[in-house]
Amino acid sequence: MEDITVVFDEAVAPEDRTAPVLIEGLPGIGHVGKLVAEHMIQELGAVKIAEIHSIYFPPQVLIGENGVVRLCNNELYRCSGEKGAFLFLIGDFQSTSNEGHYLLSQVYVDIAHKLGVKRIYTIGGYGVGHFIETPRVITAVNKESLSQLVIEAGGVFGDGEPGGGIIGAAGLMLGLSAPLEIEGICLMGETSGYLVDPKSAALVLEVLTRLIGISIDPANLKERAGEMEVAVQRLLEQEKKSEEELSYIG
Amino acid sequence: MEDITVVFDEAVAPEDRTAPVLIEGLPGIGHVGKLVAEHMIQELGAVKIAEIHSIYFPPQVLIGENGVVRLCNNELYRCSGEKGAFLFLIGDFQSTSNEGHYLLSQVYVDIAHKLGVKRIYTIGGYGVGHFIETPRVITAVNKESLSQLVIEAGGVFGDGEPGGGIIGAAGLMLGLSAPLEIEGICLMGETSGYLVDPKSAALVLEVLTRLIGISIDPANLKERAGEMEVAVQRLLEQEKKSEEELSYIG
Amino acid sequence: MEDITVVFDEAVAPEDRTAPVLIEGLPGIGHVGKLVAEHMIQELGAVKIAEIHSIYFPPQVLIGENGVVRLCNNELYRCSGEKGAFLFLIGDFQSTSNEGHYLLSQVYVDIAHKLGVKRIYTIGGYGVGHFIETPRVITAVNKESLSQLVIEAGGVFGDGEPGGGIIGAAGLMLGLSAPLEIEGICLMGETSGYLVDPKSAALVLEVLTRLIGISIDPANLKERAGEMEVAVQRLLEQEKKSEEELSYIG
Amino acid sequence: MEDITVVFDEAVAPEDRTAPVLIEGLPGIGHVGKLVAEHMIQELGAVKIAEIHSIYFPPQVLIGENGVVRLCNNELYRCSGEKGAFLFLIGDFQSTSNEGHYLLSQVYVDIAHKLGVKRIYTIGGYGVGHFIETPRVITAVNKESLSQLVIEAGGVFGDGEPGGGIIGAAGLMLGLSAPLEIEGICLMGETSGYLVDPKSAALVLEVLTRLIGISIDPANLKERAGEMEVAVQRLLEQEKKSEEELSYIG
Repeated sequence: MEDITVVFDEAVAPEDRTAPVLIEGLPGIGHVGKLVAEHMIQELGAVKIAEIHSIYFPPQVLIGENGVVRLCNNELYRCSGEKGAFLFLIGDFQSTSNEGHYLLSQVYVDIAHKLGVKRIYTIGGYGVGHFIETPRVITAVNKESLSQLVIEAGGVFGDGEPGGGIIGAAGLMLGLSAPLEIEGICLMGETSGYLVDPKSAALVLEVLTRLIGISIDPANLKERAGEMEVAVQRLLEQEKKSEEELSYIG
Repeated sequence: MEDITVVFDEAVAPEDRTAPVLIEGLPGIGHVGKLVAEHMIQELGAVKIAEIHSIYFPPQVLIGENGVVRLCNNELYRCSGEKGAFLFLIGDFQSTSNEGHYLLSQVYVDIAHKLGVKRIYTIGGYGVGHFIETPRVITAVNKESLSQLVIEAGGVFGDGEPGGGIIGAAGLMLGLSAPLEIEGICLMGETSGYLVDPKSAALVLEVLTRLIGISIDPANLKERAGEMEVAVQRLLEQEKKSEEELSYIG
Repeated sequence: MEDITVVFDEAVAPEDRTAPVLIEGLPGIGHVGKLVAEHMIQELGAVKIAEIHSIYFPPQVLIGENGVVRLCNNELYRCSGEKGAFLFLIGDFQSTSNEGHYLLSQVYVDIAHKLGVKRIYTIGGYGVGHFIETPRVITAVNKESLSQLVIEAGGVFGDGEPGGGIIGAAGLMLGLSAPLEIEGICLMGETSGYLVDPKSAALVLEVLTRLIGISIDPANLKERAGEMEVAVQRLLEQEKKSEEELSYIG
Repeated sequence: MEDITVVFDEAVAPEDRTAPVLIEGLPGIGHVGKLVAEHMIQELGAVKIAEIHSIYFPPQVLIGENGVVRLCNNELYRCSGEKGAFLFLIGDFQSTSNEGHYLLSQVYVDIAHKLGVKRIYTIGGYGVGHFIETPRVITAVNKESLSQLVIEAGGVFGDGEPGGGIIGAAGLMLGLSAPLEIEGICLMGETSGYLVDPKSAALVLEVLTRLIGISIDPANLKERAGEMEVAVQRLLEQEKKSEEELSYIG
């Protein structure tokens, strides 16, 4: 097994894999990024074009309908319409190791580069640890000239927030794409951090759609968040149990 | 030392290593898989044909009779009879690291593939955390067409159980064997998770033997479980001590 | 992504990269080394000539002015004047893994070797766990003949202090540079270990400047320490949060 | 830097490096092995012939006389006399990772093999967690035919002790040397595990010298144990501090 494997759906022609924009919504604080990206995939009818497997993901399979398992993975979706094509990077998990975060993020930006991506949006939550009445969309960029754009779309630059850094793929993809001349914008919805947060996701969606010039109905976000909360809680319980199990079997 | 080494017993001719079915019973929750597999090996008179060593196993040797040590390992057994040949994968431990779980499981399915295996059964326990009067055999498959088969044999698909995933080799071997066109079925006996559980093992054995079309007397399972419990407790105590020791010497 | 990448500023000619002396001030106890090295860089007007990225650093980006992110890194600065040229190695973090500490330190001394460095000064704090009225500058060397030199400059050899070892780059660079015939001197300012410590830094600066034969005004050290304390606290909070986050998203 | 480096003293001719017997006394429970091996090296006037460095050791240097540092390492000593030549493997630490234990132990037995070693003695302590009036010397072997020999020399085979395994180099070297046709005997002196234990060491020394056919005065063991206890306590304190430090700087 390669450390990281990317398998494209061969039924999708190479010219139907490219796009100028990639939106990353991997799991993270409040699952804001995941919620926004999966909502967009659903609303825009994006289709899966590639799967990414890695030894840096948790060593487990996930059980779907009818008891059919699949390796946990990250996936690339794509849609194309009037406003051009979009790629989406979503998935079950991020890396379980520090080194894996770097190696996976490098693969993500390399894929983006090969598929003609000129701008990456990474989406996440910014956990503040308490319920927040009017969440802001904190932003970061990998090139100064992008700042104005983001502020006009409703993002704000936290004065030194998030306290010095962005962890995981949402941050590393911005840093690693700069040398490839890919523009990077990170949008983080403020959230308590405890639950899947549709309110924060709706605000991020608003800023993001303004930036990419399309409009998406946020109506189903709340319902989707409820379903995701159930799935997330299950995974967390499983993870806790699996740590015990691994310490037991390992 | 290679990261993972597979050494076949050269006394066993290549044609006496193959089989269409592999049954995995590595250590795990309630040691259900290990108990079932070792019981079958004993009852069917299977013989060891290969040993697997790895730097991903705990860094220790085990002491056998007369104080003779051996590296901890995983082993491949094989038996052959009227109903065809069977391979068994058993062992002392699973990987100590996340990455090792993937790399070892890949080696296991690659071996299976080379030895002509068309179907892998992975066996484990499904820990529920409390004593259970009438344990079920929860199942998962790597191909939808296998579902009907498993249900007819007495397995059940837990509605979203085990809560989203199967950890370690039992799960990964199902996921990793699919691309090799090997069918995979996982049978998990419900168990408290605290002790080696012969009752749960007997139920799994029942479903499994129905699936592979042979019959095996479960009579000795209880006694075997008692012996295994002693050995497992010893290993657990040792492991606890070795963590302290390693932190002390390392 | 390479495990460790060193990128020199191409605008700096190869002959403007060399120096006989390298001063290391990576983060550590009391941030004494970082404070001394950054102060010297500022006062001497040293300019950045190279950046070092690595998968052994924490998997995050740092947010600068206007929300522009950068990968966390280590950096090489250089200045040149009457008393010759000096290289400085500073950075955001040290390695997150034991193995990474060795691999990064080896890269640091290899760079030094290529750039003509004949002597390395590593600077750190020696945490004593309580406030200390008159801190000493504890020293260590990688060659016995250096001892006299260091004592004349005001350093002291702790009788068996620091209790048997120097952790991280400050220690490893001394050990790894010896086979390359590079002299190594470590200066550790006694400090409580709880806060960025300008008093300890001023004493280390005094010994160091005496050793390298230049004079540097310590006046701004206190102010600089205050600013650094704010930044360090932010990073520490972030790190704490990121551990929770990583355990959550990973 | 190589992951593991072995450097022989070039002043020692190849024919003065060989020996039929290697005695391993790396740090471990009660430092029994280290105490026995260092005592023998001293009493027999063995000289250092090689140093082993590795990224799997703790990332630190140790400070010796006059503040001169050295990388922590493992070392090979050799002496030769009437009863033939002996090699000794001692050192500051064992591996900090599971995988490193395997990789280092493989290097140790490969060196032994190249130097003509036919038998390896690994020495350790067997921690029982309480003060013990008359400690036994528990033994293990890598070949059944060695058992009788060891019992005649005063060793005992613990009935299932140590509870299923021997951790670290003392165990792995036995397991890994078997395929190279090197005989392996492990001698573990029962000890509380809390302190460097000269009483336990004296008993192990008695059994070991009987096995190798030489006689060594145990008189200085007690004094040596006292000195070692001081050094060990220092390292342990340092280690505790360095964990805090590393979490702080890393």
